[in-house]
Amino acid sequence: MNADIQTIQDGDIASVPGVSASGVSCGLKTSGLDLGIIHSRVPANAAAVFTQNQIKGAHVPHCATKIAAGRAQTIVVNSRNANACNGPLGPEHAEAMAKAAADALTVDSSLVYPCSTGTIGIVLPIEKVCVGIVAASAALRSGGGTDFANAIMTTDTRPKSCAVTTQIDGKAITVGGVAKGAGMIEPNMATMLAYVATDADVASQDLEILLHDVVAESFNAISVDGDQSCNDTVMLLANGESGLALARDAQSDSSWAAFASAVKQVCVTLAKMIVLDGEGATKLAKIHVVDAASAVDARLAARAVANSLLVKTSWFGEDPNWGRVIDVVGYSGAELDASEIEIWYDDVCAYRGASGPVPDSVTALEAVIRQPEFTVKIRLGTGDAECSLLTCDISEEYVRINSEYTT
Amino acid sequence: MNADIQTIQDGDIASVPGVSASGVSCGLKTSGLDLGIIHSRVPANAAAVFTQNQIKGAHVPHCATKIAAGRAQTIVVNSRNANACNGPLGPEHAEAMAKAAADALTVDSSLVYPCSTGTIGIVLPIEKVCVGIVAASAALRSGGGTDFANAIMTTDTRPKSCAVTTQIDGKAITVGGVAKGAGMIEPNMATMLAYVATDADVASQDLEILLHDVVAESFNAISVDGDQSCNDTVMLLANGESGLALARDAQSDSSWAAFASAVKQVCVTLAKMIVLDGEGATKLAKIHVVDAASAVDARLAARAVANSLLVKTSWFGEDPNWGRVIDVVGYSGAELDASEIEIWYDDVCAYRGASGPVPDSVTALEAVIRQPEFTVKIRLGTGDAECSLLTCDISEEYVRINSEYTT
Repeated sequence: MNADIQTIQDGDIASVPGVSASGVSCGLKTSGLDLGIIHSRVPANAAAVFTQNQIKGAHVPHCATKIAAGRAQTIVVNSRNANACNGPLGPEHAEAMAKAAADALTVDSSLVYPCSTGTIGIVLPIEKVCVGIVAASAALRSGGGTDFANAIMTTDTRPKSCAVTTQIDGKAITVGGVAKGAGMIEPNMATMLAYVATDADVASQDLEILLHDVVAESFNAISVDGDQSCNDTVMLLANGESGLALARDAQSDSSWAAFASAVKQVCVTLAKMIVLDGEGATKLAKIHVVDAASAVDARLAARAVANSLLVKTSWFGEDPNWGRVIDVVGYSGAELDASEIEIWYDDVCAYRGASGPVPDSVTALEAVIRQPEFTVKIRLGTGDAECSLLTCDISEEYVRINSEYTT
Repeated sequence: MNADIQTIQDGDIASVPGVSASGVSCGLKTSGLDLGIIHSRVPANAAAVFTQNQIKGAHVPHCATKIAAGRAQTIVVNSRNANACNGPLGPEHAEAMAKAAADALTVDSSLVYPCSTGTIGIVLPIEKVCVGIVAASAALRSGGGTDFANAIMTTDTRPKSCAVTTQIDGKAITVGGVAKGAGMIEPNMATMLAYVATDADVASQDLEILLHDVVAESFNAISVDGDQSCNDTVMLLANGESGLALARDAQSDSSWAAFASAVKQVCVTLAKMIVLDGEGATKLAKIHVVDAASAVDARLAARAVANSLLVKTSWFGEDPNWGRVIDVVGYSGAELDASEIEIWYDDVCAYRGASGPVPDSVTALEAVIRQPEFTVKIRLGTGDAECSLLTCDISEEYVRINSEYTT
């Protein structure tokens, strides 16, 4: 964390000047908020990253087409229903959501981004949604960030918001964000949605490069490209209300870097919130694979460990069961040198391929795994590539939640 | 199931003439049997299949070297400790186990196969094991199959044995088997051990070809090559005590085929027992991917679905959540045609890519998923390759067992 970046207590996306938000209930969920809007007083420059799943929810191609112009003003999101795999009705309903918000807010429809999250393959009750959009438009306010964060939740057990402020070139700028998603496990099919806004003035091309860099270190560090839900979407909006213009190449390195750090801090904070809302998760673990033959090998090994139920349940039991880790690495498909492999929990070496288990390490390993956060480092001994992933432990609660969240 | 094959009530590996078995407690587990022996009165022809995990328990190279000669008489197995990743002590202890059994039973050490299953990376308390081997050797009896099946259990909730008999060329032959393993989930790191014996007289080369074919349709249809534990081992012994000689090419097709069917039935029965001992599993599901571009694609898709926690928890909730299935297929990496994809539960179509969800299918889908066994068929629409995998649902019990099974 950068010391020059201040966290805003109870901050959220609507902490950003010029940004308002709301959440209403339109009858998609049995109870609770299920439709939200984020709205910028003025049109903003924008960038987005979408799921790489081959099956895509209807809003994904809709929004991908719009974002090519690099502008956005309004984001409208429903939960409980993914509007995915619904045939020709899917695109029609995404279009209808955008039009309803554009009409209610007198915004150009090309600046409205509809998103959906929830169950796949159920036709969206579009009339209810449109009634909700009218209500949510009327409810927009600068204090509405928490309502929005609640409205987009599905299997989440808690809303996820944060905001920071920092001084750049003598001016204060704010970055705020909101996310939904839970269950860091393959498949992370709990759709991940994240929206980040700032009042800095940044061109959409620069936002796009920044967003890709930041997503790689935050949201994509808790999942893996191929493991995305049909609907995953991350958007970054810059409405310029601070009057501070920033550009990747025009400024001194420090100004742009300070801005990028603030955006990254918001995204990493949201990503950790998603991991720790892993439906009963109690521990955050970083899997760090080093000395791999290639980036692909490093990722194969890291992903296999991060997704291993037996490894994750052992953490829940506070058992430093490195044997399960090495077993997973062995079948991961990653090239390894059995005589060079090493397993570490934080700075405690558990196993060296040449000599076997490290004598008298058990007590130290147990101390590591009792912590709420720790790193599992795996050395493959076949090169110099590496990969990191954040993941969590797995509790009985996870299974209960996911077997009860039915269509 | 072949009508000419009779299941032996409460049969086990020691139902095979000339085969005895035992299980004793030697103090590896806190309580219960933890060391077992299977012994053939006369040396048998034999074949074996071992894990493809790059990390291998010490017994794997030991046994792989011995099986090259195609002969076996005694199998000695300890549970609770995998004798894997123990450095140079691993091979020494495997050798010591074989020698102890050879001495106790006056058998040539080259005919004794030691196997270990349990926690990785803990030095095997070899003195306890050798004391146990002496006791288990003395305890060998034709009624000892159940004791053996219990002695090799780790996270299993119940022992797994079966035996069949069939008439071939006017003579009765018996095939009996025993297995351990539970938790059909990636990674299936609960080591899978299976031993099958018959009193037919078959050359080891023929046993080897048969075993590879049968394993592909049984034990490898519940896991995937790359997902194996460090210690997985399947052995097939033929001691010839029936006096019936069988050969792949020398006999009429029907004699060999009848024998192969009996061996397959034992292996498939044991494989299903492993899946249904999926630590709280209540349902057996066959994942059948069809019309894939290649066998690799078919396997990628089938494996992703079979390993998806969200899919498997939805089955536990008796929810035909085909949206989770299509989402998994979408990120599986398998090539698919989104307009051609279809999802079926038994003979009920849930989704067709071109038109979307099948109207009014929900009641029929719910009826399918309430059954104890069903098939999920996924059509990728990109070719004519296919793959089948057996898997189970996932309950809260699974997580409880695996978080409590500590080092």
